[in-house]
Amino acid sequence: MTEEIAMAKRNNKAAGDAKKTRASAAATDDTTITALNLPPQPPSPDMAEYFAKCREKLGFVPNVLKAYAFDMSKLAAFVAMYNDLMLAPSGLSKLEREMIAVAVSAQNRCYYCLVAHGAGVRQLSGDPPLGELMAMNYRAARLSRRERAMLDFAVKLTAEPWLIEEEDRARLRGIGFSDRDIWDIAAVAGFFNMSNRVASATDMRPNSVYHRQSR
Amino acid sequence: MTEEIAMAKRNNKAAGDAKKTRASAAATDDTTITALNLPPQPPSPDMAEYFAKCREKLGFVPNVLKAYAFDMSKLAAFVAMYNDLMLAPSGLSKLEREMIAVAVSAQNRCYYCLVAHGAGVRQLSGDPPLGELMAMNYRAARLSRRERAMLDFAVKLTAEPWLIEEEDRARLRGIGFSDRDIWDIAAVAGFFNMSNRVASATDMRPNSVYHRQSR
Amino acid sequence: MTEEIAMAKRNNKAAGDAKKTRASAAATDDTTITALNLPPQPPSPDMAEYFAKCREKLGFVPNVLKAYAFDMSKLAAFVAMYNDLMLAPSGLSKLEREMIAVAVSAQNRCYYCLVAHGAGVRQLSGDPPLGELMAMNYRAARLSRRERAMLDFAVKLTAEPWLIEEEDRARLRGIGFSDRDIWDIAAVAGFFNMSNRVASATDMRPNSVYHRQSR
Amino acid sequence: MTEEIAMAKRNNKAAGDAKKTRASAAATDDTTITALNLPPQPPSPDMAEYFAKCREKLGFVPNVLKAYAFDMSKLAAFVAMYNDLMLAPSGLSKLEREMIAVAVSAQNRCYYCLVAHGAGVRQLSGDPPLGELMAMNYRAARLSRRERAMLDFAVKLTAEPWLIEEEDRARLRGIGFSDRDIWDIAAVAGFFNMSNRVASATDMRPNSVYHRQSR
Amino acid sequence: MTEEIAMAKRNNKAAGDAKKTRASAAATDDTTITALNLPPQPPSPDMAEYFAKCREKLGFVPNVLKAYAFDMSKLAAFVAMYNDLMLAPSGLSKLEREMIAVAVSAQNRCYYCLVAHGAGVRQLSGDPPLGELMAMNYRAARLSRRERAMLDFAVKLTAEPWLIEEEDRARLRGIGFSDRDIWDIAAVAGFFNMSNRVASATDMRPNSVYHRQSR
Amino acid sequence: MTEEIAMAKRNNKAAGDAKKTRASAAATDDTTITALNLPPQPPSPDMAEYFAKCREKLGFVPNVLKAYAFDMSKLAAFVAMYNDLMLAPSGLSKLEREMIAVAVSAQNRCYYCLVAHGAGVRQLSGDPPLGELMAMNYRAARLSRRERAMLDFAVKLTAEPWLIEEEDRARLRGIGFSDRDIWDIAAVAGFFNMSNRVASATDMRPNSVYHRQSR
Repeated sequence: MTEEIAMAKRNNKAAGDAKKTRASAAATDDTTITALNLPPQPPSPDMAEYFAKCREKLGFVPNVLKAYAFDMSKLAAFVAMYNDLMLAPSGLSKLEREMIAVAVSAQNRCYYCLVAHGAGVRQLSGDPPLGELMAMNYRAARLSRRERAMLDFAVKLTAEPWLIEEEDRARLRGIGFSDRDIWDIAAVAGFFNMSNRVASATDMRPNSVYHRQSR
Repeated sequence: MTEEIAMAKRNNKAAGDAKKTRASAAATDDTTITALNLPPQPPSPDMAEYFAKCREKLGFVPNVLKAYAFDMSKLAAFVAMYNDLMLAPSGLSKLEREMIAVAVSAQNRCYYCLVAHGAGVRQLSGDPPLGELMAMNYRAARLSRRERAMLDFAVKLTAEPWLIEEEDRARLRGIGFSDRDIWDIAAVAGFFNMSNRVASATDMRPNSVYHRQSR
Repeated sequence: MTEEIAMAKRNNKAAGDAKKTRASAAATDDTTITALNLPPQPPSPDMAEYFAKCREKLGFVPNVLKAYAFDMSKLAAFVAMYNDLMLAPSGLSKLEREMIAVAVSAQNRCYYCLVAHGAGVRQLSGDPPLGELMAMNYRAARLSRRERAMLDFAVKLTAEPWLIEEEDRARLRGIGFSDRDIWDIAAVAGFFNMSNRVASATDMRPNSVYHRQSR
Repeated sequence: MTEEIAMAKRNNKAAGDAKKTRASAAATDDTTITALNLPPQPPSPDMAEYFAKCREKLGFVPNVLKAYAFDMSKLAAFVAMYNDLMLAPSGLSKLEREMIAVAVSAQNRCYYCLVAHGAGVRQLSGDPPLGELMAMNYRAARLSRRERAMLDFAVKLTAEPWLIEEEDRARLRGIGFSDRDIWDIAAVAGFFNMSNRVASATDMRPNSVYHRQSR
Repeated sequence: MTEEIAMAKRNNKAAGDAKKTRASAAATDDTTITALNLPPQPPSPDMAEYFAKCREKLGFVPNVLKAYAFDMSKLAAFVAMYNDLMLAPSGLSKLEREMIAVAVSAQNRCYYCLVAHGAGVRQLSGDPPLGELMAMNYRAARLSRRERAMLDFAVKLTAEPWLIEEEDRARLRGIGFSDRDIWDIAAVAGFFNMSNRVASATDMRPNSVYHRQSR
Repeated sequence: MTEEIAMAKRNNKAAGDAKKTRASAAATDDTTITALNLPPQPPSPDMAEYFAKCREKLGFVPNVLKAYAFDMSKLAAFVAMYNDLMLAPSGLSKLEREMIAVAVSAQNRCYYCLVAHGAGVRQLSGDPPLGELMAMNYRAARLSRRERAMLDFAVKLTAEPWLIEEEDRARLRGIGFSDRDIWDIAAVAGFFNMSNRVASATDMRPNSVYHRQSR
């Protein structure tokens, strides 16, 4: 495939040299974060520390946090819930939680979350196509039975929550998920059903740096 | 209507006297709160205080809190976000926020949230039929233009979040909602899209006392 | 639960004392029955007798009958079909027929029928939560296999009638329903698919007394 | 077009001569009318007279009547409502009522009603392609504004009855429909939403003669 | 059924005699073929020959070809693909390919393709009701297991292509379809998903002669 | 943003160093191109030349061509139609045609086409985020009125082709599209509705090189 990569690079260069007649679709994404005019409050000490940690670990503050920063109580509540769900100990790996985030966001066609958490899947898995698959159609991915059952549950819960019943939980248990794991799948799927809607309602824009991450 | 009420009371009594051949559909709802076996942790001091406040103010602890009580961090994060959204100062009245909660939960056909927040609408409005309308079809209610626009936004955001665009926000602004109000509509609608899914995923049961409240 | 009920009553009273700033959502439901200006004809002798019987048995004349009363032929045809379906001998109990009525009306989100027949389920079952479950999400109810299969058939027939096939009928037969029972399930489900649409098309309003019945 | 017709006739003959390797898809439609084993009752005098009238006017008894004939009360109620809706005086012409019947049945993909009432549209209009258009996609037909508005209302009422509101009725009034006409549109659309479901639930088969009628 | 046919003929005649107050719904279908003003190019020699062959074999040139005739390259590409798919050797019979065409077009409610290929099914099968069934609801047809599985695959692929997975292909293989047959089912279904959309986008009208063919 | 990029690179490297515990989701995509066992024919001279041209211009032969190569007639017909639609002169730019391809493929959640044509949008626009937007939710992109109208038409035509009417075409004309342009929008949208389904039906896998192109 060496030749193919060389060719692809030449193509990339050619396109880069071409005179751009349009601004990048992400031109203002790092400055105009939502469609709502809600100027940030001065960060509380806790949140200032958290932002600093983001900059240190990620290199930037995710735009969703800047969007919530107009109100420190809302920001703190969001951060507390997010970190508990995505980073605290769980029977689900961090990659599994990100996979749920992206598959749910694909069902809801949420631009912000697909870009931000698509990057998360690429980074945690070290496998860029896996991120694409989660964002495009998780059913086309070659997944383990465990991963597939987890995502089927999360996506059904997203699309038609009223149809979830005991047999859906039984299927997860049959594959080895504990009741706590089922809670976590539901809670992560639920959380992104919330975030997708806050992002879509406000036209939230992902940091442009995500597009290049872990490709 | 006096005669009609008398008649209705007689009918109620007749049905009450009739030998019941089946257990109530809510028979176990106060004891088996979800389909997951997740025993409660000992409450943290904060949460113990909060539960006490619920008992004092409501007469009971809402089952959703008992469901989250298997993990104090998750419970605290949920309570912090819920109280900020539903009780903190906002351009939306508490009744408006409950109306969003019920209209969203109706779109998602979530039994727990319809029962619990339907009671909330009945109580805050003092108008039981308003609670029924929110749960059954908010479009059939005689609402102010403001209320209707708010619910149309929340329900569209629930059903097809990918279709929300600037013109949807412009409609809200045109009726007098501020950007902060739009955030709050989105955040409340988003929150119940999360809660509906956690409740549906776990078969969460509403406290039986809700059924009789504010009728 | 005695304490909880006392608390709930206090809450009810508080809300009742609160100055109401809005008219009840049902304020005109007993006087403006539909959005169409179709004044009633003088009742035929048969229909006059039937209305009298309604007043005697129910305490009121259901608004749907008043809505049809602009034309005695249409009223008589409606009454004949309704009474045959809902009251005549059948392998389905009257409660089962009301359960179908409500589950179908929930699929179609019909305010009139959910209120009127939700009351019917509460009264015939003596179990208010059962009425709520039928109106909100019948899948969340603890039903017998027979009831569940009956409602699954009725709701599939409502949502996607073109998908009903021999295997759907076979499932009902396997649970003990006769061919006549299957007809009756289909006929009751069909009837409410009609009534839901007449009610929705005309903004038909349920008698306000239903809201308080059998709670 | 004379040459084209001659050619078409030759093609028809060729196909007719070809050895048929399969029974007609309608082979048993005149004998096995539904998938339910519900033998007919002896007809009541009224119904015997009505069947005779069908044979005289149509040349046959429509299978839907034979399907209901297992119970004379049900048959009589169905016939009374059908005849009132489709044949009694109305601001809607008989053709308009048949057009509603077919457009509704197309939304519900009901084989029985599309065949039987498609023939009705062909016969009443003298225009076979109009029948095809109603059954396939009424939006592709060249209709008057009145016809189009009528069918848009009927089909929206069929697909999403919960979305019908005052502005839908206002549109009909703006085109000249009276409140009574609106009732009739709703009632005919409602009736076929019922009949479609009874037919689909029972696999009701149309009389084979319909296929050749008014072509 | 002789008497029924005689009666049906009398009915046809009566309707034919009736003064028509409206032009046929197909009045302009043979002259105004699409809603786009795209005058035909002079046919290339190949295409002139192909048109002549259509006139000889069918008696007319199908309107879809006239629609593409504004550009000979596009016409030639369409004809090449169409003829390969529908007429070249395949494990699927020509009738089976036409059945797929109609069932797909019914899902997409495409007037042009339903009329043109409905006639195709009638002619190739010699069984007019089979054409009606494909256009109205293929699930109501008495099909072989092979035919049913083939159409289930084609219609699922049409409605929700993202849900097709290995188990769908396995079902076809289990019934005896080869991998090449599966390709052909997919390719024919895909082709009509394209043609349905070109026809719907341009309001393409079927040759009026199709309506009378093979009835 | 320099610091952010540096940080992102460090993150990428960390993930790359991490021991991979799973094979890449694209591990076999360049060798097992579809789920069907259809070995390639020897290429015809035309097709051999075309493959050579692909290798020269792109650096590889797109997998969709290898998938069709089991039958030279099918391959030639596909290539002829594809090249005419996507590369021949048109009022639509090549980028616009690729944007339609991706927006349609997003509606149909087609993995193959989203990957291959997402790369096409990135390359032709020189703007990677534009490719992401087309694949995730084109409504979130900052598009010209022309681009937006074009994609709205193409996606409505994809999702509900039966709803396209004169007013949809009029909207395009009002923005400056000619009738020929409308044909081209429809034809490109139609073509990808076909290709999406052939790809989904066969589990077609995109060349892995696409993932890295023009990032």
